[in-house]
Amino acid sequence: MKRKIFKEDIIKAGYELMYLNGYNATGIKEITDRVNIPKGSFYNHFATKQEFGLEVLNYYSEMGKQALIEGLINSKLSPITRLKKFYKSQIEYFEHVSENKLGCLMGNFSQELGDTNTDFQKALNEDFINSTAIFKSCFDEAKAMGEIDESKDTTILAEYITNAWQGALLRMKSNGNIKPLEDFYTITFRLLLN
Amino acid sequence: MKRKIFKEDIIKAGYELMYLNGYNATGIKEITDRVNIPKGSFYNHFATKQEFGLEVLNYYSEMGKQALIEGLINSKLSPITRLKKFYKSQIEYFEHVSENKLGCLMGNFSQELGDTNTDFQKALNEDFINSTAIFKSCFDEAKAMGEIDESKDTTILAEYITNAWQGALLRMKSNGNIKPLEDFYTITFRLLLN
Repeated sequence: MKRKIFKEDIIKAGYELMYLNGYNATGIKEITDRVNIPKGSFYNHFATKQEFGLEVLNYYSEMGKQALIEGLINSKLSPITRLKKFYKSQIEYFEHVSENKLGCLMGNFSQELGDTNTDFQKALNEDFINSTAIFKSCFDEAKAMGEIDESKDTTILAEYITNAWQGALLRMKSNGNIKPLEDFYTITFRLLLN
Repeated sequence: MKRKIFKEDIIKAGYELMYLNGYNATGIKEITDRVNIPKGSFYNHFATKQEFGLEVLNYYSEMGKQALIEGLINSKLSPITRLKKFYKSQIEYFEHVSENKLGCLMGNFSQELGDTNTDFQKALNEDFINSTAIFKSCFDEAKAMGEIDESKDTTILAEYITNAWQGALLRMKSNGNIKPLEDFYTITFRLLLN
């Protein structure tokens, strides 16, 4: 008996394809082939490719937000220890699991669609605001505990570091190794979060 | 009399389209329509879309390299003054000319193709190595003149800052304004190049 295909199965299939190949390079048929349903069935669930793409983004950014809350807020480790652990596990992932591919879907979609599609821009901006706020909250805790110098502006540092990480991920893709992520880690903890 | 269309005209047309919309989203016909030639003529000049895309990348990165050499090497200003002037003019460009769009073609292609296409990866990596070396050379001059603290590692700083700028450009696209570039400027000169 064939397993019933749910909306979330299609989102997951599209997420995997779009994460690697991008939004424009991923066709509807490729997505429906992956879950073995006819192409037409896609439109029972999603009005347009864009509506689907926004759901894929939401699926990813919700997972990301939960991981950030777990790693950077709900932890008994000191704030800087949490941050180091978080980035180390990210670097580990990109080295051994994704093999220097993929990056961050929010970054990928920003690059591909942020400046040409206002619906994606709005959704991406909200996602970045949410994740940056979690970093800022962790930096503020570090500052209150004296782990970060009290002269430092955690709002602008959270923006800068969130963006610098995106740049490091982007460079990883053309570098073909995690050296850009290691450089990110070194400078971030040596000169910014100190 | 119709003006003769040269290979470089096609590259320039493709560059404009791919810079904004990306490599995958740009069709050959769109490019040839822009310079008013039949689609088939494209293949008199380029064997494949990929060969063309690599020429577009080379066209862009050569322009970028010349601008970096002019701004960061061949200048009588102090190294840090050169760097500040360079980034200020970039921010001005993204605010008033590109209107928070486009970003950097090397970054865009890295994001879109760096991890899935080894020919692009190789070309992009070389371009980034070249531009990072120019930044490092300027940072080294600054260090020799005492504008940057002598304890700082200019190799890793050049990598970090080049990548952080890519991240700021990416975030500009989803932010819809130049705030990420201003944050980049503030932190880079306040905490890294000091």
